[in-house]
Amino acid sequence: MSKTWKVGVAGLGTVGGGLLAYLDQRADFAPAGGRAVVSGVSARSRSRPRPVDIGKYPWFDDPVALARSDETEIFVELIGGSDGPAKAAVEAALKLGKPVVTANKALIAEHGAELAVLAERMNAPLLFEAAVMGGTPAVKMLREAMVGDEVIRVAGILNGTCNYILTEMEAAERDFADVLAEAQAKGYAEADPTMDIGGFDAAHKITILAALAFGCAPCYQHAEVEGLSNVELIDLKLAKELGYRIRLTASAERTEAGVSVRVHPALAPLGHPLSETFGATNALFIEGRRIGRIFIQGPGAGAGPTAAAVAADIADVMTGAARPVFQTAAAHLKPFAPVAPGQRREKAYLRLMVKDEPGVLAAVAETLAEVGVSIDSFLQRPSHDGVAVPIVLTTHTSPETAILEAVERLAALPHLLQPPRMLRIAHI
Amino acid sequence: MSKTWKVGVAGLGTVGGGLLAYLDQRADFAPAGGRAVVSGVSARSRSRPRPVDIGKYPWFDDPVALARSDETEIFVELIGGSDGPAKAAVEAALKLGKPVVTANKALIAEHGAELAVLAERMNAPLLFEAAVMGGTPAVKMLREAMVGDEVIRVAGILNGTCNYILTEMEAAERDFADVLAEAQAKGYAEADPTMDIGGFDAAHKITILAALAFGCAPCYQHAEVEGLSNVELIDLKLAKELGYRIRLTASAERTEAGVSVRVHPALAPLGHPLSETFGATNALFIEGRRIGRIFIQGPGAGAGPTAAAVAADIADVMTGAARPVFQTAAAHLKPFAPVAPGQRREKAYLRLMVKDEPGVLAAVAETLAEVGVSIDSFLQRPSHDGVAVPIVLTTHTSPETAILEAVERLAALPHLLQPPRMLRIAHI
Repeated sequence: MSKTWKVGVAGLGTVGGGLLAYLDQRADFAPAGGRAVVSGVSARSRSRPRPVDIGKYPWFDDPVALARSDETEIFVELIGGSDGPAKAAVEAALKLGKPVVTANKALIAEHGAELAVLAERMNAPLLFEAAVMGGTPAVKMLREAMVGDEVIRVAGILNGTCNYILTEMEAAERDFADVLAEAQAKGYAEADPTMDIGGFDAAHKITILAALAFGCAPCYQHAEVEGLSNVELIDLKLAKELGYRIRLTASAERTEAGVSVRVHPALAPLGHPLSETFGATNALFIEGRRIGRIFIQGPGAGAGPTAAAVAADIADVMTGAARPVFQTAAAHLKPFAPVAPGQRREKAYLRLMVKDEPGVLAAVAETLAEVGVSIDSFLQRPSHDGVAVPIVLTTHTSPETAILEAVERLAALPHLLQPPRMLRIAHI
Repeated sequence: MSKTWKVGVAGLGTVGGGLLAYLDQRADFAPAGGRAVVSGVSARSRSRPRPVDIGKYPWFDDPVALARSDETEIFVELIGGSDGPAKAAVEAALKLGKPVVTANKALIAEHGAELAVLAERMNAPLLFEAAVMGGTPAVKMLREAMVGDEVIRVAGILNGTCNYILTEMEAAERDFADVLAEAQAKGYAEADPTMDIGGFDAAHKITILAALAFGCAPCYQHAEVEGLSNVELIDLKLAKELGYRIRLTASAERTEAGVSVRVHPALAPLGHPLSETFGATNALFIEGRRIGRIFIQGPGAGAGPTAAAVAADIADVMTGAARPVFQTAAAHLKPFAPVAPGQRREKAYLRLMVKDEPGVLAAVAETLAEVGVSIDSFLQRPSHDGVAVPIVLTTHTSPETAILEAVERLAALPHLLQPPRMLRIAHI
């Protein structure tokens, strides 16, 4: 175990820089004295300023060449992106039977099934702890600690940027666009925030966790994704009056009807650990048939935590453990069987902005009754401008199709000043 | 990986029975199709009623004989106890190079260092996920996921019985002895509750976590242990008025002065995840230099969760991973260097039952001033009986020696009706 492993690192952004800095200080970090020495690096720009002087490492313009280099024993892919050079380089390493460690959630969520087949055929580990909740070991927990149980559900907060924005909106009573702009200015949010705000980043992550939890092939295109851009400050305030906080929730559930993988803003009860998760912190519930519920909370990004997760994977490679990439051998991964919306049941929050006139409440109540959705709680606030009155209600658990039908019928009422806003109440 | 592993199970209590039931249903639970088949069992009583018919398994009167049997490839020790047959059988298996999986916290906390040397010399895995937070993978997290970081502190709630008792005392406003008696009657607490109530069970567990976190040899005899039996209902109530909840806290901290491993009742702020952990649930914070804080919460006992943890360890054996037993090779485990009390700093809660007479407050304040302990908050309640008045105060952070000196001097004041009650405020 005390051999020296030559590590090729492709991608030298925040995480790559953090990893080089760490291995510089602690090449002997791995248990039992295994050493990790950087044997080559590759990035888009050689000259960009970095926290570590990369001049001392052999440079590769092409990450595929680094992956193939005789000097690379473990290939670390921190380039990002589901296709292009990241995928080409990972495939090149695996084809030569080299262990691969990656932080690339898009790659694993979109191509994980085929990469797992290749990795297992070549007996090459393919590890991606840093791809989900960077630094908080959700992947290891699901892949290794839960194999003595059957996981039925995982649900949590997997995107720190969205949670930071929701936290700021609530604390400072500021609008979404306002907080997002500030987060971008401070570098907390990307210049193009679509991946985060649109829920796609969380969808990549929950797709990976679903594959690990249920032994099904990761299938990103079946994930249902609703982002944050429709959440308004007024919804945060009204939800709170009803005893909830809004969180961008990623969840995967296994039922007899199939597997449901979803990302959407949802209401979590105040006091519940998800609603008490603030700022960029990530959180996850894992529910097993025998173990019951495990909750894990921690950092979801950042150079330090993510590089530590990559380093832990490098240490795992050194143990020689032979494990399938997901929970089950790639050849036996079950096909992903999405649940039909008609089979799902939800509780919902509905906000209607209505004209301040008689008959509105009757019309709303009647519409809900027609589709068989019953009301759990109801809140009407005085109008601020003498025109629009917010009506908020939560429903009892109902077929999702009935709730969607209610939304459609409510939208057609003449009393409504804007389309109804529907948010789900989290299954927690 | 798809071979069949013959598993010998010694100890057929709750966990052993749960494991047999699980393997009966799901021998193929392990990743990549490895199978675990029970090849022999041993227990104190062969005839005791059990959820599983053990008649179909080869029976061994002597667990050492089971450990040595040619039919045993993985030895599972669920006998319990730090010495005696459990230790003898584990040693017998390791000496033959057989992987051992155990749930025995006393054995690992008290003899882990020597067993690790033996296991590593024989290249035999020695795994004990089920020994701490049964079902919630604290051991795997520290041993494997945190190796890319340096852990500086772990702290949490590791004894479900004590947390259940504290939760019940608060909810039902009942005395400690009363709740304990009921818990015993219901089977939630042992007939002899010393291990739980005295803090020794939690001390075994935190000793193990400290070894994993810091790469030091587990050293149970250096753990400082204070149990729950001095916590009175009045302390729960007064602490809550000051914004705290009392929890039996197990913590291990690494500072330049050494390693501190302790179990004691401590005040955790309301709203903090430890104070919001109720009933028999366990919870743990892991603090790493780079990752920051990870929080994990889940079941700490029970047949289902603990058997699932044992099964996960069996699956780990099947991967062939070569890892040191603790975080570092046994030969390189650092000696445990306890922190001298004089180097520790604490905030404390002090409850004084004083006579309802003039001059008391001045005497208390003066005594604290003499030893240099300053007061953070103060609460005096009217006397219920016209004789004893409870005075409660919390201190600012002070040298622990000064706080202990204050307690001693306060005890000597003529105004006091009983010795002062001191509880630490949790470092969280």
